[in-house]
Amino acid sequence: MKRIDLNCDMGESFGPWNMGADAEVMPWITSANVACGFHAGDPSIMRRTVVLAAESGVAVGAHVGLPDLAGFGRRAMALSAQQVYDLAVVQIGALSAVARTQGVKVMHMKPHGALYHMVERDEDLAKALARAVYDIDASMRLLGRSGGRLVACGQQLGLSVAHEAFADRRYLSDGHLVPRGERGAVIEDVNIAAAQAVKLAEEGAVETVDGTLLSLRADTICVHGDRHDAVAFARLMHQQLRASGVELRSTEH
Amino acid sequence: MKRIDLNCDMGESFGPWNMGADAEVMPWITSANVACGFHAGDPSIMRRTVVLAAESGVAVGAHVGLPDLAGFGRRAMALSAQQVYDLAVVQIGALSAVARTQGVKVMHMKPHGALYHMVERDEDLAKALARAVYDIDASMRLLGRSGGRLVACGQQLGLSVAHEAFADRRYLSDGHLVPRGERGAVIEDVNIAAAQAVKLAEEGAVETVDGTLLSLRADTICVHGDRHDAVAFARLMHQQLRASGVELRSTEH
Amino acid sequence: MKRIDLNCDMGESFGPWNMGADAEVMPWITSANVACGFHAGDPSIMRRTVVLAAESGVAVGAHVGLPDLAGFGRRAMALSAQQVYDLAVVQIGALSAVARTQGVKVMHMKPHGALYHMVERDEDLAKALARAVYDIDASMRLLGRSGGRLVACGQQLGLSVAHEAFADRRYLSDGHLVPRGERGAVIEDVNIAAAQAVKLAEEGAVETVDGTLLSLRADTICVHGDRHDAVAFARLMHQQLRASGVELRSTEH
Amino acid sequence: MKRIDLNCDMGESFGPWNMGADAEVMPWITSANVACGFHAGDPSIMRRTVVLAAESGVAVGAHVGLPDLAGFGRRAMALSAQQVYDLAVVQIGALSAVARTQGVKVMHMKPHGALYHMVERDEDLAKALARAVYDIDASMRLLGRSGGRLVACGQQLGLSVAHEAFADRRYLSDGHLVPRGERGAVIEDVNIAAAQAVKLAEEGAVETVDGTLLSLRADTICVHGDRHDAVAFARLMHQQLRASGVELRSTEH
Repeated sequence: MKRIDLNCDMGESFGPWNMGADAEVMPWITSANVACGFHAGDPSIMRRTVVLAAESGVAVGAHVGLPDLAGFGRRAMALSAQQVYDLAVVQIGALSAVARTQGVKVMHMKPHGALYHMVERDEDLAKALARAVYDIDASMRLLGRSGGRLVACGQQLGLSVAHEAFADRRYLSDGHLVPRGERGAVIEDVNIAAAQAVKLAEEGAVETVDGTLLSLRADTICVHGDRHDAVAFARLMHQQLRASGVELRSTEH
Repeated sequence: MKRIDLNCDMGESFGPWNMGADAEVMPWITSANVACGFHAGDPSIMRRTVVLAAESGVAVGAHVGLPDLAGFGRRAMALSAQQVYDLAVVQIGALSAVARTQGVKVMHMKPHGALYHMVERDEDLAKALARAVYDIDASMRLLGRSGGRLVACGQQLGLSVAHEAFADRRYLSDGHLVPRGERGAVIEDVNIAAAQAVKLAEEGAVETVDGTLLSLRADTICVHGDRHDAVAFARLMHQQLRASGVELRSTEH
Repeated sequence: MKRIDLNCDMGESFGPWNMGADAEVMPWITSANVACGFHAGDPSIMRRTVVLAAESGVAVGAHVGLPDLAGFGRRAMALSAQQVYDLAVVQIGALSAVARTQGVKVMHMKPHGALYHMVERDEDLAKALARAVYDIDASMRLLGRSGGRLVACGQQLGLSVAHEAFADRRYLSDGHLVPRGERGAVIEDVNIAAAQAVKLAEEGAVETVDGTLLSLRADTICVHGDRHDAVAFARLMHQQLRASGVELRSTEH
Repeated sequence: MKRIDLNCDMGESFGPWNMGADAEVMPWITSANVACGFHAGDPSIMRRTVVLAAESGVAVGAHVGLPDLAGFGRRAMALSAQQVYDLAVVQIGALSAVARTQGVKVMHMKPHGALYHMVERDEDLAKALARAVYDIDASMRLLGRSGGRLVACGQQLGLSVAHEAFADRRYLSDGHLVPRGERGAVIEDVNIAAAQAVKLAEEGAVETVDGTLLSLRADTICVHGDRHDAVAFARLMHQQLRASGVELRSTEH
């Protein structure tokens, strides 16, 4: 039986400001990437998000971001490998303590925003990030771009990794995503996105923008929580995958 | 044989800014209260401070502060008990992960600056702070004002506590400190301060400003790292205590 | 002809996070209190908010807040008068430059959140805040609690002041508001609130919780932008006041 | 008579943390680039720095930096031109208000750290930064790398500009600096640096690392306040220039 994980960014509110529809999306996913206070999230929101995930039996992971609240961690910053290591340790540790007070454990780490891309472009940063996870808890899983640098670095350290694919983004035939901003980068139609999710789960493949079939390992699929129709999107993906006989399960189990 | 702990605030630099003489003071103390990024400290400084403490065999503790970098955690803020709990969990967790990557463990928690006093004035805040420690690691020790609310709340939860006294501050006969800013609040002469430390360690007593003898439990003595003569002060206290036959040992051993 | 100003907090978004319905509320008010980056707002949001106000012919004012983004400036902090002065200068200056680039001028200053109350409780803080306005631009108007300390301090300096009253809050007979959290503190029914606004504008009076009539100077009425029905509330107040023959005009004209 | 300006970064302390020897360096310079709270500085430090400059008759300028306190504005960030414009407006405005309360005026703007280099690499960012100055006060002067993009953009807008050269850095024959970190990038010997300053002031030329003579317009010379010998360096440059008959004067007069 095929199985797949659905992960979604969670806990991205801050102070008085709300973001996302965490409570509505949570029932349809299997892994929550929880913001750790650098790009979003604050101590109280971290706790509430962990509680919410625990109530739905969703695996809690650390969503490690750049120290840039105003930019939501989406603006690349020139950080050293040591700085990436250090900020990851602190963020994973903060969430781990929150999780412990709620009787759960941080099961995975996924880099957020610009950091997600920085580690794919720079081997030293990828190594530093993987090493941070390894040094804190070698049983923690690493989520990164399917076939990318981060998961490769994680595997070299002996970490479990989860290759991530996207259901609502178009792929180029070289395996990269069509850049945001270009026409057709995002799949707006949730039915088409859900079909792409099913194909990824069942066949480990995706149809690229030029019509070829691309093999793509998909252990986990990203549910973009910032879509205006995030809840409907998550629910539909969940239902279509289940209807196709795919088991939904966090990669950690 | 009498014994006592010498604790000092450490890791209070931030980004490009240096504070304190951590490397010089470290050899003379037994417990380091490490800033966790809220009132001071950043991820890289936290790591370097833990490394420094580990090299000297000094016990690492979390110095939990208010979220007020510009004010260095010294301006009281109207926080709820839940907020105090949450910010403590995150800070202790962050430092715990840093410590783990360096092969050491966070052994104690001490509130910093305004928070130190807020928990003594407000029972709910004291309970929340003690509970945060308990929920993360019930074997962690709580440092607080000798005979004060925080240690009382810690004991009610079954936590180990360390009653803290001051060698370079004058006491009122009711057990409170002469407020900073008042004449004679701070003992400038390091010899007199060291003598007060010895008396605290040997007799559990201190001579108050009005000349009476006050019984005061002293499990740990605070070494103020922000004195201009902090290194000399720490060294002299260390030497005088040893010369008096007092064993210097972190309270955790 | 009676006239009154309707002021509303604006520009309280931050980075990726939205707050309020500025564009919808703006047409119904006459003065916008624009957050200046300390409790809310960032440089880009400040610019967009000033543009929005200018397009509606709404007077721009600086909404000066505490340096506590996570707490939205609503947690009292122990600041010195000098610190209050300094943070006000910087915030007013920042907004003034933004306004200048858009061809408008900052016409008033109103303290936000906890600072609003801090200056009413502490004469030194009120003086410092009024002095900051005076030192930057002695023609700028000061908004503060009707009959309160801030407006009194402003008047002593020769500043124009605007006494602020609330349409959707109940008053005690001593002129203070029923504290938030107590039953009946907030007037939920917009029709009753609008009627209170009309009474304030026409008679300079408000019916208190114990049924007495309280004289209350009202140069400006606060439109709470954080009500769930803020747009309807603002529109109804605007319309009822106009229908009663009250002129709506920012206090600066 | 030849004349030149000596500019130095000032007000780079933050909260409880001190940086630099502002009071000792101030008497030897003619222009102070004052940090505006983004990469360093806070409202109170900004005020004290302006007071210090005013007391020495030193021209006050805004030192505009990236929103990255922990990184001291030295880590490049992927900002849009609009974001650069907005953060410059807010910083210049904040300092302008501080200056006004002290009876002085902000005379120039110089970008700090990574932003200094970002505007030289990206024409759009240079234009945005120059435009921000122009829109606030078209009489304000722009300091930037001699012969670089920023001063060129400023001139296109009709702004006064000051070409900046370095006395204690080695130049390549293409006019760029030998990158920090490479051997010989920094001139450690203050006598050699002072001699380079005199040559720049008198001849508008500098000897490059390969021994050729490079023409380099120098309206202002940067005094690095972060040298361990900053005070001696500033004093010697000041004295040597004066002894050579060069007039020291801020470019604004």
